[in-house]
Amino acid sequence: MGQRVIILGGGFGGLYAARTLGTREDVEVTLIDRRNFHLFQPLLYQVATGELSPADVAFPLRAILSNRKNTRVILGEVSDIDPVKKELLLADGASEPYDWLIVSTGARNHYFGHDAWAEHAPGLKSLEEATNIRHRILYAFEAAEREMDPEEHRAWLTFVVVGGGPTGVELAGALGEIANDTLKGDFRHVNPKDARILLVDAADRLLSPFQPSLSAAAEQALIDLGVRSIVNVMVTSVDENGVTLKSADGTEQRIHAHTVLWAAGVAGSAFGAKLADRLGIALQRGGRVPVDDHCNPAGHPEIFVIGDVAYQTDAKGNALPGVAPVAMQQGPWAAKAILSRIAGQEPKAFRYFDKGSLAVIGRASAVAQLPGLNLTGLLAWLAWLFIHLMFLVGFQNRLIVFIRWAFNYFTYNRGARLITGDISPAERDRKLARNQPGV
Amino acid sequence: MGQRVIILGGGFGGLYAARTLGTREDVEVTLIDRRNFHLFQPLLYQVATGELSPADVAFPLRAILSNRKNTRVILGEVSDIDPVKKELLLADGASEPYDWLIVSTGARNHYFGHDAWAEHAPGLKSLEEATNIRHRILYAFEAAEREMDPEEHRAWLTFVVVGGGPTGVELAGALGEIANDTLKGDFRHVNPKDARILLVDAADRLLSPFQPSLSAAAEQALIDLGVRSIVNVMVTSVDENGVTLKSADGTEQRIHAHTVLWAAGVAGSAFGAKLADRLGIALQRGGRVPVDDHCNPAGHPEIFVIGDVAYQTDAKGNALPGVAPVAMQQGPWAAKAILSRIAGQEPKAFRYFDKGSLAVIGRASAVAQLPGLNLTGLLAWLAWLFIHLMFLVGFQNRLIVFIRWAFNYFTYNRGARLITGDISPAERDRKLARNQPGV
Repeated sequence: MGQRVIILGGGFGGLYAARTLGTREDVEVTLIDRRNFHLFQPLLYQVATGELSPADVAFPLRAILSNRKNTRVILGEVSDIDPVKKELLLADGASEPYDWLIVSTGARNHYFGHDAWAEHAPGLKSLEEATNIRHRILYAFEAAEREMDPEEHRAWLTFVVVGGGPTGVELAGALGEIANDTLKGDFRHVNPKDARILLVDAADRLLSPFQPSLSAAAEQALIDLGVRSIVNVMVTSVDENGVTLKSADGTEQRIHAHTVLWAAGVAGSAFGAKLADRLGIALQRGGRVPVDDHCNPAGHPEIFVIGDVAYQTDAKGNALPGVAPVAMQQGPWAAKAILSRIAGQEPKAFRYFDKGSLAVIGRASAVAQLPGLNLTGLLAWLAWLFIHLMFLVGFQNRLIVFIRWAFNYFTYNRGARLITGDISPAERDRKLARNQPGV
Repeated sequence: MGQRVIILGGGFGGLYAARTLGTREDVEVTLIDRRNFHLFQPLLYQVATGELSPADVAFPLRAILSNRKNTRVILGEVSDIDPVKKELLLADGASEPYDWLIVSTGARNHYFGHDAWAEHAPGLKSLEEATNIRHRILYAFEAAEREMDPEEHRAWLTFVVVGGGPTGVELAGALGEIANDTLKGDFRHVNPKDARILLVDAADRLLSPFQPSLSAAAEQALIDLGVRSIVNVMVTSVDENGVTLKSADGTEQRIHAHTVLWAAGVAGSAFGAKLADRLGIALQRGGRVPVDDHCNPAGHPEIFVIGDVAYQTDAKGNALPGVAPVAMQQGPWAAKAILSRIAGQEPKAFRYFDKGSLAVIGRASAVAQLPGLNLTGLLAWLAWLFIHLMFLVGFQNRLIVFIRWAFNYFTYNRGARLITGDISPAERDRKLARNQPGV
């Protein structure tokens, strides 16, 4: 019997760690996830905007790991940890002992203390949220088509994306394409081009982690798609009829909109907070668990916290960003560090190798900040396409995503623009009826 | 201004009618549907079994009809009809007057008066139901993997499909393939081949509308996939722990199963009942609206009821079956009949041309009853593949479905086997915990 390694979470960090450990016979690996699939989050916004289908960006964890005979997969939720007994407690009452633990439970949407905003401004972390956003975007055009009151009509055609990071830019750009191209000719009363798409950020420019010239290029590309950015503003309220924005000088403006999307902030997962509590350490900024340069929380060389739930700084003291490449590098590193320690050797410190950042805006339009090289436009977009296809799991998924992109490129059609899910059309009808004067 | 034609429902009947009317300038067409897409129901069971993704079998109605400039599409629910004023009332309070009306609102699941069974035995009429069934099937294997009690373990691995028509046969066959091939090697405690798949029917054989030799061929093909059929039994109860079956001789047997799927019966849509009530006519068998050989309910030459919501008999007095080809022929016929009557001519009676019936069991396995020719095995399967790809709307959908089928054929993988949707894993965990002795 080898040593027991438990990996929590099948995202980039956990899955890449499992792949590295899966070839070794001297460890018994258990991967626990609440979902039965690995989700390729970088393309989730394309599910939310009807370009891809959920199954295109998700891959069953069991299928990925089925030939790793030392690895078992558990579909379950971990509710607690006992770091002294080295044991995890699952929601169904089972317990799982570990010798080594990799925590890669990711991040959740964060509303800066205003949890009530979640209902009106969904974020983009899960497949269900993506299809919910898809529902809201597409339904807004349907409602506008039937809404006679000019003020309400305009509110249905107003889309506010909160957060000007890569996800917000991608969502707003896709909304611009939907309005300009995809829905062209589909309606009889609505001109989809009348849609007002606002991208809101608290910093003084979009994509603030990128260099200013790339921010400017992105903003211009968004303007070409009909997206207007509003920077230097804080969101002070969100409800079913819109958002209120406050400028640095204290002036407030109200935007009447029925579709508000949240791309403004994430925080470490709930299990991260539980872990910090049980270890007696304080959470860092963004609800993340502070770890040393070996991905270990203080005093626990048997626990590795990686990816979006971890707070780790580089040699200069800057926090590593919450992006996929960090998790993709920490996962295999943590796996190898465990094998080293089992062999009685101390691994060298983890060093993040930053290969650059990418944000896509629309067709043939992206910005890329690579080491020593900035790209915009078609070249950046091709780089984005290539990298995302390369890292997508599963050859079938790659082929189908490629075909959907090609169709979208040549026909502007988004085949997955279905209104499905938990808000029933009848329910929305009633909401619409409530908003109509005189009904 | 041309005459106003309203089409209710964008299924085969309504969509095919709209396509026929969409090229004419002398009519104004309005298509009303609760959903924004046409659903290709014959492939819905493949969504339920993880082979296809929802977007593969659905196509946005607006995109199909966008170049029909005389046609508008309304996303909405019709709540009532006034046949004297010739007006429809929508759930949001709007009203829509018509000169001609085509009712093709389809069918819903029918539990023979036991509506409480619906919760425990979902049917297969909508995309949401398909993903719900997918969730239940895949979750059952996950739960079995973690269940230590032998009796409960067996109940999680027992699947009961109620109804031995084409849909039931297709579901049971796909379940057999999932257990035998798709999940092979995915689990460490469960051997998916241990799954017990039972197909239950009240008639004395499966596929009773087919010729007995084809029923026998289907049953043998199912046995090869590990599916056992139980015929000549009535379902007398369904709950979360299984079903009770009663034989003709009165003996009862209880089957302990956590996954029960309903393919036993459908009834005409709720709007059909409303329409019959407003017209003062009695519903026919299966909650269908009786119509004459012109698809008109008695005394209303301006109303056409077609597809699964209609009850129409052929020259011999036999009711037309509730299958796609009937609706596909009635739709264009009703469209042309309206144009004839507008031109002052009386159309000839509708005649259904029966091109045959098909049911698929699994890979390279199907039965086909064509005029003068019965096929089984590979040939029937190829006919089934060809016909379904041909009638699927959208070239992109056809290409992607073809690719998914090819991958499934060669790798046995089902890329869309995602557990998503409204039953959260945590909720299921608690349910599982409740069922565990001693927890």
